[in-house]
Amino acid sequence: MAVQTVASTTNSTVDLGPAAALSCRECGHRVPLGPVFACEECFGPLEIAYDFSAYDTEKLRASIEAGPANIWRYAPLLPVPADVAGKPNLNPGWTKLVKADNLAAELGVTGGLFVKDDSGNPTHSFKDRVVAQALEAARAFGFTTLSCSSTGNLAGAVGAAAARAGFRSCVFIPHDLEQGKVVMAAVYGGELVGIEGNYDDVNRFCSELIGDPAGEGWGFVNVNLRPYYAEGSKTLAYEICEQLGWRLPDQLVVPIASGSQLTKIDKGLQELIKLGLVEDRPYKIFGAQAEGCSPVSTAYKAGHDVVRPQKPDTIAKSLAIGNPADGPYVLDIARRTGGAVEDVTDAEIVDAIKLLARTEGIFAETAGGVTVGVTRKLIESGALDPAKTTVVLNTGDGLKTLDAVAGTGLTATIRPNLDSFRKAGLA
Amino acid sequence: MAVQTVASTTNSTVDLGPAAALSCRECGHRVPLGPVFACEECFGPLEIAYDFSAYDTEKLRASIEAGPANIWRYAPLLPVPADVAGKPNLNPGWTKLVKADNLAAELGVTGGLFVKDDSGNPTHSFKDRVVAQALEAARAFGFTTLSCSSTGNLAGAVGAAAARAGFRSCVFIPHDLEQGKVVMAAVYGGELVGIEGNYDDVNRFCSELIGDPAGEGWGFVNVNLRPYYAEGSKTLAYEICEQLGWRLPDQLVVPIASGSQLTKIDKGLQELIKLGLVEDRPYKIFGAQAEGCSPVSTAYKAGHDVVRPQKPDTIAKSLAIGNPADGPYVLDIARRTGGAVEDVTDAEIVDAIKLLARTEGIFAETAGGVTVGVTRKLIESGALDPAKTTVVLNTGDGLKTLDAVAGTGLTATIRPNLDSFRKAGLA
Repeated sequence: MAVQTVASTTNSTVDLGPAAALSCRECGHRVPLGPVFACEECFGPLEIAYDFSAYDTEKLRASIEAGPANIWRYAPLLPVPADVAGKPNLNPGWTKLVKADNLAAELGVTGGLFVKDDSGNPTHSFKDRVVAQALEAARAFGFTTLSCSSTGNLAGAVGAAAARAGFRSCVFIPHDLEQGKVVMAAVYGGELVGIEGNYDDVNRFCSELIGDPAGEGWGFVNVNLRPYYAEGSKTLAYEICEQLGWRLPDQLVVPIASGSQLTKIDKGLQELIKLGLVEDRPYKIFGAQAEGCSPVSTAYKAGHDVVRPQKPDTIAKSLAIGNPADGPYVLDIARRTGGAVEDVTDAEIVDAIKLLARTEGIFAETAGGVTVGVTRKLIESGALDPAKTTVVLNTGDGLKTLDAVAGTGLTATIRPNLDSFRKAGLA
Repeated sequence: MAVQTVASTTNSTVDLGPAAALSCRECGHRVPLGPVFACEECFGPLEIAYDFSAYDTEKLRASIEAGPANIWRYAPLLPVPADVAGKPNLNPGWTKLVKADNLAAELGVTGGLFVKDDSGNPTHSFKDRVVAQALEAARAFGFTTLSCSSTGNLAGAVGAAAARAGFRSCVFIPHDLEQGKVVMAAVYGGELVGIEGNYDDVNRFCSELIGDPAGEGWGFVNVNLRPYYAEGSKTLAYEICEQLGWRLPDQLVVPIASGSQLTKIDKGLQELIKLGLVEDRPYKIFGAQAEGCSPVSTAYKAGHDVVRPQKPDTIAKSLAIGNPADGPYVLDIARRTGGAVEDVTDAEIVDAIKLLARTEGIFAETAGGVTVGVTRKLIESGALDPAKTTVVLNTGDGLKTLDAVAGTGLTATIRPNLDSFRKAGLA
């Protein structure tokens, strides 16, 4: 019912650039662009269908290279109006692709190892990329409130984007979150509503609100704006290839929460191939999970096509989705490209965070520990070829998950004199 | 003695690009490039003297514009070798200059208000800019350990830069710092030494260590490498002008800790004028302090040329230097350019952090609250002209000073149903 109510606001004159329609990933049924997310025929997920037919490869490449140092250099490939760069938003993206030679040496990678470091985004996670798309859709559909359910990174990204764009924001979180996360979400001045219940209760309430008149005018970035929102992850694929000199990497290691990011990175790579911006050659996508929330890697290893839900118990909270909506698509992509899905323990996550920090000076959040840890494990098992170009994603910032490395501290304590210094063996 | 010991390692074949010599800011005495920081004649501070004579304005502009999206686009104007961009470092800079129209509307600024947001640097403060210069000097002088005294931002910046560059690092901090800051400094894997004493004790010990054989091979970024280190702040001036379309802003609001950053921003602007990269017209530089550590604004308001030390007591800990080395130079620049120095209370700092967050989606550390708060105060007093182009610096990230806004929290708590939602007045 929620779907149909909102679908009635669909407007065929909406200008979201090359976005032509919404198309069901399962049955292909097409509907006009609107704030809907599930197919009215089969309840499959809707995603954006584009019209890229008018593009000339070399003109497109030149326009991208002359574009701004943020995701809007790819505006012609995103569901946003052509003048998006002039609208108030956080201008995320064009984060560093760090050539990680020290880490490569430790892991025995000889073919070139890169870290795509999305901690450089405005609110220090990849969520700024997806929220920026949802914001443009919200503008196009005339919403005045930006909303989401969140336990962390997304809350800050929505609060910040809404503040800058002049939207009201109303973010829903479990009422008993850590104080640090609450402060980060509250500082932007929007409504921050604690729900007496767990994250599942928060999600269920948000779905109820969308179907109610009280939710009219509300754009939930990860619910009724999800088809637009999700496309933001394509920009990771675009940037990686452009930063490699318009070249596909051989191997990518991508974290899995809902699985949406991995599927959209694959979609982005396929688009670059079809547009002629990169040479069409094989690439492998590897998915990374925490052992304490590994529904997709469990299914992968068992050879299953369906993903059995799990109850999360891991320090990698930003990846702790026990019932990942895009899990089956992730399995398909990992198998089709010759990749794999692997998981690491919480202890391995902490080790990997420290490994990345001490080799490259990058302080990753726990999700970055998951991808680096899985990369190491995949090299050891032989699944990942160390002689090939490999890109590992870090999607967030260690400052947001300090507790994970709280055991790290002083290596020595001395009195303020040289004698004490020498006795500590530091000279 | 420390100075002379280290000066003996000076090498005239050192390649630090356009850096020609060290020159005393007080008496003009010149010495060859080396790890020295105080004049042997008058104990005045040494700074870099450049040879820019061979530069053609338009060729230089073109080379900068074609350069990388980091500080190394300005390598021809910095004390670094020409091939610096290929060496392992954190590649900081080229952070966003955000056109802050919402904040401008709140403050009544009509001439264009911009926030230079250095929270986008790799370790989320402007310190990455200065440490990157010190690192190149350390390489040039053959040091193998990178070191500093710090209470926060600098510790992380040095630890991260050393990790990436393959240097040993040894950072000295007071032993009783907050656990969060300790974790952030320790995660990069270098030596992190707690000193039983306060920050003054840490500083005094570091000076002692430099003069001792135990400190041989150690580059203290903010002591014996300080002349190189300090030049990193010039890149803020370069970026602001280039991002404004090679134009000087009319007014800049800059935080004051030691005062080094403000003096180097002025130096950078003067260089751009002399090189013909911007039109020579007046600009005003305003200095911003916290009332709880306001030695420079106190001297400014009293009409003094000397700065009387204070004992800091403010939440703006990154600016809490009670005896700022460059205080007299700051007074001179503020007066010469027609600017001013002003201070704000801790409560005004917190208000300003929240104001910036809710208007522009930028979560600043306390130092950013100081500059935004001072900007507001200067407009109210008429010292700052709201009809002119104004750039306000945010030099750090709110995630590092969460305590300052710890009172911020949930705006409502509800049960997960629509009835409870309506009763809370959120519909």
